[in-house]
Amino acid sequence: MLLYQNLRLLRILRITWKVDLIMLVLCAIAYWLEVHVIKDFVRVPTTLPSLIGTAIAFFIGFNNNQAYDRWWEARTIWGGIVNDSRSWARNVLFYSSRNDLGYTDDLPEADELPRRMILRHISFLYALKKALRGAKDKSYFKYISEEEGQQVSKYTNVPSALLDRQAKDLNYLKRTGRIDGFQFMTLNEMIVRFSDGMGRSERIKGTVFPPTYLYFTRLFIWLFVMIVTLSIADDTGPWSILLSWIIGFVFHVAHINGLSLMNPFEATPFGISLNAITRTIEINLLELLGAEEVPSPVEVINDEFIM
Amino acid sequence: MLLYQNLRLLRILRITWKVDLIMLVLCAIAYWLEVHVIKDFVRVPTTLPSLIGTAIAFFIGFNNNQAYDRWWEARTIWGGIVNDSRSWARNVLFYSSRNDLGYTDDLPEADELPRRMILRHISFLYALKKALRGAKDKSYFKYISEEEGQQVSKYTNVPSALLDRQAKDLNYLKRTGRIDGFQFMTLNEMIVRFSDGMGRSERIKGTVFPPTYLYFTRLFIWLFVMIVTLSIADDTGPWSILLSWIIGFVFHVAHINGLSLMNPFEATPFGISLNAITRTIEINLLELLGAEEVPSPVEVINDEFIM
Amino acid sequence: MLLYQNLRLLRILRITWKVDLIMLVLCAIAYWLEVHVIKDFVRVPTTLPSLIGTAIAFFIGFNNNQAYDRWWEARTIWGGIVNDSRSWARNVLFYSSRNDLGYTDDLPEADELPRRMILRHISFLYALKKALRGAKDKSYFKYISEEEGQQVSKYTNVPSALLDRQAKDLNYLKRTGRIDGFQFMTLNEMIVRFSDGMGRSERIKGTVFPPTYLYFTRLFIWLFVMIVTLSIADDTGPWSILLSWIIGFVFHVAHINGLSLMNPFEATPFGISLNAITRTIEINLLELLGAEEVPSPVEVINDEFIM
Amino acid sequence: MLLYQNLRLLRILRITWKVDLIMLVLCAIAYWLEVHVIKDFVRVPTTLPSLIGTAIAFFIGFNNNQAYDRWWEARTIWGGIVNDSRSWARNVLFYSSRNDLGYTDDLPEADELPRRMILRHISFLYALKKALRGAKDKSYFKYISEEEGQQVSKYTNVPSALLDRQAKDLNYLKRTGRIDGFQFMTLNEMIVRFSDGMGRSERIKGTVFPPTYLYFTRLFIWLFVMIVTLSIADDTGPWSILLSWIIGFVFHVAHINGLSLMNPFEATPFGISLNAITRTIEINLLELLGAEEVPSPVEVINDEFIM
Amino acid sequence: MLLYQNLRLLRILRITWKVDLIMLVLCAIAYWLEVHVIKDFVRVPTTLPSLIGTAIAFFIGFNNNQAYDRWWEARTIWGGIVNDSRSWARNVLFYSSRNDLGYTDDLPEADELPRRMILRHISFLYALKKALRGAKDKSYFKYISEEEGQQVSKYTNVPSALLDRQAKDLNYLKRTGRIDGFQFMTLNEMIVRFSDGMGRSERIKGTVFPPTYLYFTRLFIWLFVMIVTLSIADDTGPWSILLSWIIGFVFHVAHINGLSLMNPFEATPFGISLNAITRTIEINLLELLGAEEVPSPVEVINDEFIM
Repeated sequence: MLLYQNLRLLRILRITWKVDLIMLVLCAIAYWLEVHVIKDFVRVPTTLPSLIGTAIAFFIGFNNNQAYDRWWEARTIWGGIVNDSRSWARNVLFYSSRNDLGYTDDLPEADELPRRMILRHISFLYALKKALRGAKDKSYFKYISEEEGQQVSKYTNVPSALLDRQAKDLNYLKRTGRIDGFQFMTLNEMIVRFSDGMGRSERIKGTVFPPTYLYFTRLFIWLFVMIVTLSIADDTGPWSILLSWIIGFVFHVAHINGLSLMNPFEATPFGISLNAITRTIEINLLELLGAEEVPSPVEVINDEFIM
Repeated sequence: MLLYQNLRLLRILRITWKVDLIMLVLCAIAYWLEVHVIKDFVRVPTTLPSLIGTAIAFFIGFNNNQAYDRWWEARTIWGGIVNDSRSWARNVLFYSSRNDLGYTDDLPEADELPRRMILRHISFLYALKKALRGAKDKSYFKYISEEEGQQVSKYTNVPSALLDRQAKDLNYLKRTGRIDGFQFMTLNEMIVRFSDGMGRSERIKGTVFPPTYLYFTRLFIWLFVMIVTLSIADDTGPWSILLSWIIGFVFHVAHINGLSLMNPFEATPFGISLNAITRTIEINLLELLGAEEVPSPVEVINDEFIM
Repeated sequence: MLLYQNLRLLRILRITWKVDLIMLVLCAIAYWLEVHVIKDFVRVPTTLPSLIGTAIAFFIGFNNNQAYDRWWEARTIWGGIVNDSRSWARNVLFYSSRNDLGYTDDLPEADELPRRMILRHISFLYALKKALRGAKDKSYFKYISEEEGQQVSKYTNVPSALLDRQAKDLNYLKRTGRIDGFQFMTLNEMIVRFSDGMGRSERIKGTVFPPTYLYFTRLFIWLFVMIVTLSIADDTGPWSILLSWIIGFVFHVAHINGLSLMNPFEATPFGISLNAITRTIEINLLELLGAEEVPSPVEVINDEFIM
Repeated sequence: MLLYQNLRLLRILRITWKVDLIMLVLCAIAYWLEVHVIKDFVRVPTTLPSLIGTAIAFFIGFNNNQAYDRWWEARTIWGGIVNDSRSWARNVLFYSSRNDLGYTDDLPEADELPRRMILRHISFLYALKKALRGAKDKSYFKYISEEEGQQVSKYTNVPSALLDRQAKDLNYLKRTGRIDGFQFMTLNEMIVRFSDGMGRSERIKGTVFPPTYLYFTRLFIWLFVMIVTLSIADDTGPWSILLSWIIGFVFHVAHINGLSLMNPFEATPFGISLNAITRTIEINLLELLGAEEVPSPVEVINDEFIM
Repeated sequence: MLLYQNLRLLRILRITWKVDLIMLVLCAIAYWLEVHVIKDFVRVPTTLPSLIGTAIAFFIGFNNNQAYDRWWEARTIWGGIVNDSRSWARNVLFYSSRNDLGYTDDLPEADELPRRMILRHISFLYALKKALRGAKDKSYFKYISEEEGQQVSKYTNVPSALLDRQAKDLNYLKRTGRIDGFQFMTLNEMIVRFSDGMGRSERIKGTVFPPTYLYFTRLFIWLFVMIVTLSIADDTGPWSILLSWIIGFVFHVAHINGLSLMNPFEATPFGISLNAITRTIEINLLELLGAEEVPSPVEVINDEFIM
């Protein structure tokens, strides 16, 4: 997630220089055509650029809106995972506790099984993050036993295999009477919600935004700068190349702004800060378990973004 | 689902050549009219094309937005079916298992009835896919007994008939005490959600987008290119035919972009990749059951799309 | 629901001829004014039509979007009723069945009370359809006893009275132990959802779209064509009447496109096809009950639409 | 809720005459400036009005969309209250009834406590309506005992105090075994939903739409008509005052259209028809209780709207 | 939350004077360039400003829409917290009460534990408000014991730690038989919803709106006023500086309108009035508990806004 705008103009030019060059060349060609080939026969009226401009504005607006919706939905899904994670830990811990009946101000301590289920949940988060970001690390091993780690890594879908194990343990808690049907139902519903959050994340990651929209936006911007040049070349002379490029630059920047949000789970500064979110939950859950070593929050990189 | 944009411009022209030709002819007619018939009496001001352009921009934006919403809703429904399928299998398997009370790290094995219910769910998915795509294959036979296959194919709505059988078996599990009321409720809720996902898919497939919008978009684009030609013919000469066609081409491409997403369940490269999604669930469920032969994921066709 | 676009242009003119005539007359008046009265004093700049055009584009877009939302929400509500109806029948049938404990591949048969509740549900659908479409028929009598028919028709809200009877019978099932608390809760929730679907349909039917929007759209289109005529009369001569009318026609058609979706429960070709939807559920439910005579689906009218 | 558009143009002028006058004066001032002060030095190009027009179109579209969303959400909330009210009465009546086990076609009669709870719900609706509309009447007294009326009117939030009493009685029903846990849960969930509907209504009523948007819309329309006058004064002469005012009038009407929907709970013809909705529920509930006197529906006022 | 618009124009100028100055300088530079450097070679056509204007209109509309959505979602979340808080108090109080079975018109009184849970909820709200607004105060101490205050302030996430304690006490209520499974489930669900509301608030607070959008909006407005000046300098002379600035001012104001809603949890007059909302709940809950001292509602500040 980008925090501050350190995007000096120069940096944008560094990102877009290829397209900038293409547009400049196209404008120059159009200018050359207008002046040397078709000048005497044809005058391109200024209506045409604004008509195409309308169509491009539609494309850019459409792409940006859908991209932002993908980005915000991704953020919302992980926001939901945060909330449910806290509720999961709270419920597993308190409702399976063996506290005596006497009222006490102290929180219960987790014995082995609940503790395992809460830690395994952190593993689930790391495994899901890995699946979404495509990284190679196996940091999800950290909070489960080595044996379990080896078992789950055989599955195509590791986070789902971890949820399977949660369901198994939950069932065990119930069969042994440590939680009753109501608590079982509540906790099982949360597993269903984690499964849901996982699937929704996969959907966003796995669904390619229709590439035709992106292709034609670019193509039409190129066509557009040429027609702008044609239409203003007579009045403006060679400066029309520069002016048309500026127009094209503005539209192109608007276009790539949307592109940067299109795939929110990629490990870019524009993506969702999965590292930070996962760490937040990790800290909350470890604190609840009264762990001695709690990792510190993820740090801002380069004064600019967090991952 | 289209993955990469291999749509060279030439290919687009191959798709749209009929409409392109119509537009070129209309522009030529308008040019001929302007030059030979009405030139001396009338000058069509350039305001008119932009006024009609506004109306067409509205139509195209409207169609595209609604088409994308249908497409994305379709994708979301099937994303939900993926998530619920995993939860279904997990819950059927673990909560009806006859595991002894002793804690063990192994997952339970499904005995016959749960196994049947999980496999039947794969059948349900294939049957639903068939109903949505209108294909003739009966691949849903694969995971149910032949007798059951013959029984359900008598019904108008095969996927629904399969869900009926799930409910019957679920009830049996409960009556025989293998699951309790809470687990019954959880599992029954999932059947309701599958029924819901099925119905929502049918709704999108069965509801024709109001054809008046599509009809008038096309009609007005044709009218539009003629008026553009009329308004620029004096200044631009015969080139006005080409320029007007370019404008019309841009708007027409924007229009068919939306059209391609309108019916997300059709078996086209632009539709939802039901084959791939169904296969993903099939793999996950078979792995969970510890099946020996697990099919491989659906492959990308033509380096371009998956079905 | 309109299936195919048989709307030849001529037919549209037949629908809109009154407004077309009004617009032609207004344009003619404006032309006459421009030429004979104010020609020498005033020149109306072409900026003005585009400024008003912007305002009208807003109105038309707004109306169309809200109309489509009403239409799509109506369709979604009835899609939900379809899904819930199937779940209702499935659950009533299977969970109240007196099947012995032995596993069997056959589906249970409904004895009298469940059968009655499933058939009464079809009545509910017909009664709701009647209430929404305002028809006079009493086809909902078909699936309930005559006595019950007379009792419920005394109520202001017949579909609601039928739901009351479902609740009564559901309670009876529970009190006699044929279903347990969990099943009761599931089924009762469905009655609540039917009540919800009914109320949401009534809301759409009963809430008039703010008529000011429609009034001013029409008024401003009329004003608009006059100002267009004024602004192009000098350049274009008498042809300006025709051209202005064309512009007005385009905007007016865009406007009535939205109007046709505004009231989705009216019995027009543009409305939701309640007949077809109700019949689909009727067929599904009767098949589930193993009925001997199952009606055939609703047919397409005039090769154009279904009701 | 406005039913018919009796808004003759004259009436609109009567509503907007102040702003109309302001705009006419501003246009006149601009005209005078253009002609007498700056004519010789400056020519305001017609680009400027369309640039400002774009900004104003954004403001107006934004305000209208948000206003309509508030209005429609308000309507939806009360639609939900209608549905839940019927379900509430149905469930309270049938599930707490002391019917013997024998099946009967008659509906149960409510004895005192359920009857009280259903009538108190009507009180809740009247109290909520009063809180939203700010009226002084105490018609909610009608359906509760005088004592209870005095008790609840001590609370800051009367409708909430009535819900408290529903919860108390619900608890009593459960403790005395007239309803079981499942039915208790269902009914309690409805009280939660009423609480929710109440809170959502309060949110819409209590959240002022950001006044900056409204302020600048008006301000910029004024600026706009002046710049339009400046830009067309040379071509059009004194008529430019009238023409600019027409443009301003169109935009201003578009603006106040949105304003009229902004506060849907105010007792204006444009608001949600709380009287009619409350009365509908009152009728439904009294009919269900078999009351002898049932009030008639709320009548249309002035052939134009219902409250 | 801003209540009245006291934003005289002067005040806006006071807020925006820096940007206003920058724009004036840029316009002056552009004017100087046009007149002294490039006048003879180049004429910048008026098409260009409107093309860029389209792009800027997209940016401003996009930013404003997303900002308003953030603001309205924030308001909705806290509206939901209000509703759930009332339901929480009502359920805790009534369902854990030790009332005898005899029906009574009086409300039950809370004994110690329920009382503590209801008061702790007020603490939760103050702690959450503090976390969102970043204030230093510890007013959440007021409604919990000093010991508990010290324990929870050790946690990174104080509101979450308070919810943990609610869960612990809820469990105690259940284990001691004061509430049954159904009531436990209902109340636990509310804790889950508070956790959810908290997480959703944190998401809005913690997710920076993509800064690229804001950066380029500003940059392009500056570019825009320069190009406007260039294009009208010839016709309008030095006045073009002023006129261009006015255009820029209009767009800039539209932009900062959106900015002011972007971070709804900041303690500004434009943010959500957390103080007032929290106080409302506090009053409702204390009244329900029959407290003797109930604080008065939060007051309007400066006749303009509430916090």
